[in-house]
Amino acid sequence: SLLDDSWGRLATLADRWRQRIRAAFPKLPARRGFYDWLIDGPVAAAVRAGRESEAERLIGNQLAPGAEPRAGRVILVGAGPGDPGLLTLHALRALQQADVIFTDRLVSPAILAMVRREAEVIDVGKAPGGHAEQQDGINRGLVTHARRGRTVVRLKGGDPFVFGRGGEELEYLRRHGVAYEVVPGVTAALACAAYAGIPLTHREHAHGLQFVTAHCRESLDRVDWRGLARPGQTLAVYMGVSELDAVRDRLIEAGMAPEARVAFVQDGTGSAQRVVVTVLAALSDAALRHAIA
Amino acid sequence: SLLDDSWGRLATLADRWRQRIRAAFPKLPARRGFYDWLIDGPVAAAVRAGRESEAERLIGNQLAPGAEPRAGRVILVGAGPGDPGLLTLHALRALQQADVIFTDRLVSPAILAMVRREAEVIDVGKAPGGHAEQQDGINRGLVTHARRGRTVVRLKGGDPFVFGRGGEELEYLRRHGVAYEVVPGVTAALACAAYAGIPLTHREHAHGLQFVTAHCRESLDRVDWRGLARPGQTLAVYMGVSELDAVRDRLIEAGMAPEARVAFVQDGTGSAQRVVVTVLAALSDAALRHAIA
Repeated sequence: SLLDDSWGRLATLADRWRQRIRAAFPKLPARRGFYDWLIDGPVAAAVRAGRESEAERLIGNQLAPGAEPRAGRVILVGAGPGDPGLLTLHALRALQQADVIFTDRLVSPAILAMVRREAEVIDVGKAPGGHAEQQDGINRGLVTHARRGRTVVRLKGGDPFVFGRGGEELEYLRRHGVAYEVVPGVTAALACAAYAGIPLTHREHAHGLQFVTAHCRESLDRVDWRGLARPGQTLAVYMGVSELDAVRDRLIEAGMAPEARVAFVQDGTGSAQRVVVTVLAALSDAALRHAIA
Repeated sequence: SLLDDSWGRLATLADRWRQRIRAAFPKLPARRGFYDWLIDGPVAAAVRAGRESEAERLIGNQLAPGAEPRAGRVILVGAGPGDPGLLTLHALRALQQADVIFTDRLVSPAILAMVRREAEVIDVGKAPGGHAEQQDGINRGLVTHARRGRTVVRLKGGDPFVFGRGGEELEYLRRHGVAYEVVPGVTAALACAAYAGIPLTHREHAHGLQFVTAHCRESLDRVDWRGLARPGQTLAVYMGVSELDAVRDRLIEAGMAPEARVAFVQDGTGSAQRVVVTVLAALSDAALRHAIA
């Protein structure tokens, strides 16, 4: 808690409500329970995210006569690319506070090992591009558990807002009036670049950076290939391995030099990390030769 | 150390060299010193980064007759956008191991407060777009301190490889044969999006993500405005506040809708975070009205 400069703001807020809290909970045990919720629940999350007015509203609702039982919340947490050392302190805190954790196949076992022992872990086993019904089930699960007053963590590989459907989950939570917090994570492109020693921007060679996903044919059709093929930038292609031929052909067709440098990073930051450097024209051959799949 | 799955690989490596280490350091105190270096220095860093052959080479060199005194190393560390809770566990470890820390104006005081007490902190006070001589001085400083056998941390706001000149520092270290490690960080775009609750990609609205920097006129001339203006993606403009009029005019000229939604995030994740949502056409007016600078 020393690590978080929002505590001062939370303390000020609590102090401002002190008289009303004392009036609503004249007996010490109930008052203590209320303060536990204040310090460790959606109010603190709202303060950390700079949403002070939401924090005020949450306290006010809870102190109103006939208030509902205190509600839980959902924390969307980016777990980073695999190495547990790339968890943020906030992510670690969330794993330690969770009553329930919804996780998927992109989160490494070493990270799941850091979850609070008492937490219920629900593996939603979602592959990228999973079915819409599956996503609906996850959304409903998050809301159901939060409404039972639990602290729910939705743990996602990388960053929750980069190709992770975190945006859809967020919309669903908002629509259903569930308190939420988002903990960003180190996304794969940044982590792989760091571990492979390949800068993403460079004063002389790369002035911008683009992230695209190539996990299916459909996603390829939505891409601005001419924009991607332009020199002077770095491209990070997520989940690109199943469409290598198409990616190579379309980039060359759009004007990218066949000798442009390409690095594959497999299991980036994990114990089996492999980096293969090749050129665009040799993309598929290199993948085949090095058994990258 | 429990948090890092590279320890197993390091232990295997150490075991393989055990006989030669014993031969080179027959006396226990010297051998213990060698193992301290092995576990906590450039060899461990190379193993963590998956560079096993470099690790082997470092050990071999150190055991050769007449070896140089053990060399230090440089860790390029992404400090994230400001909230200390967004430090990664590896970044925290680096701050706790450092003998010397080179920091700049983008790193928050709350993060500097977490540095090992004995470390020497050197503020290189570099503004974005700082002079080349300044960068040369930093590069030389990193190498000089590492050659004295020290663990040097180069602490950078956000991620070291996204608009941070980390790539140039890395090149310099490689050219001078200094051992290095890169710890990626949560870059501002991801963190601001998470704290403001604005998804960066979305199945229906945004299939890609572009990062550009707009800290000076020159940087604006290098940008592919047509590519940026294309719908169906999210743009993250770093350091864009001084060139708002130019950014607005060029995007609209290139075909972006004047009513496209724009969010300013000021002091993102910090205690003074502010989010202002407006439309492209009203960019400068909104900045003026909300005193964003």
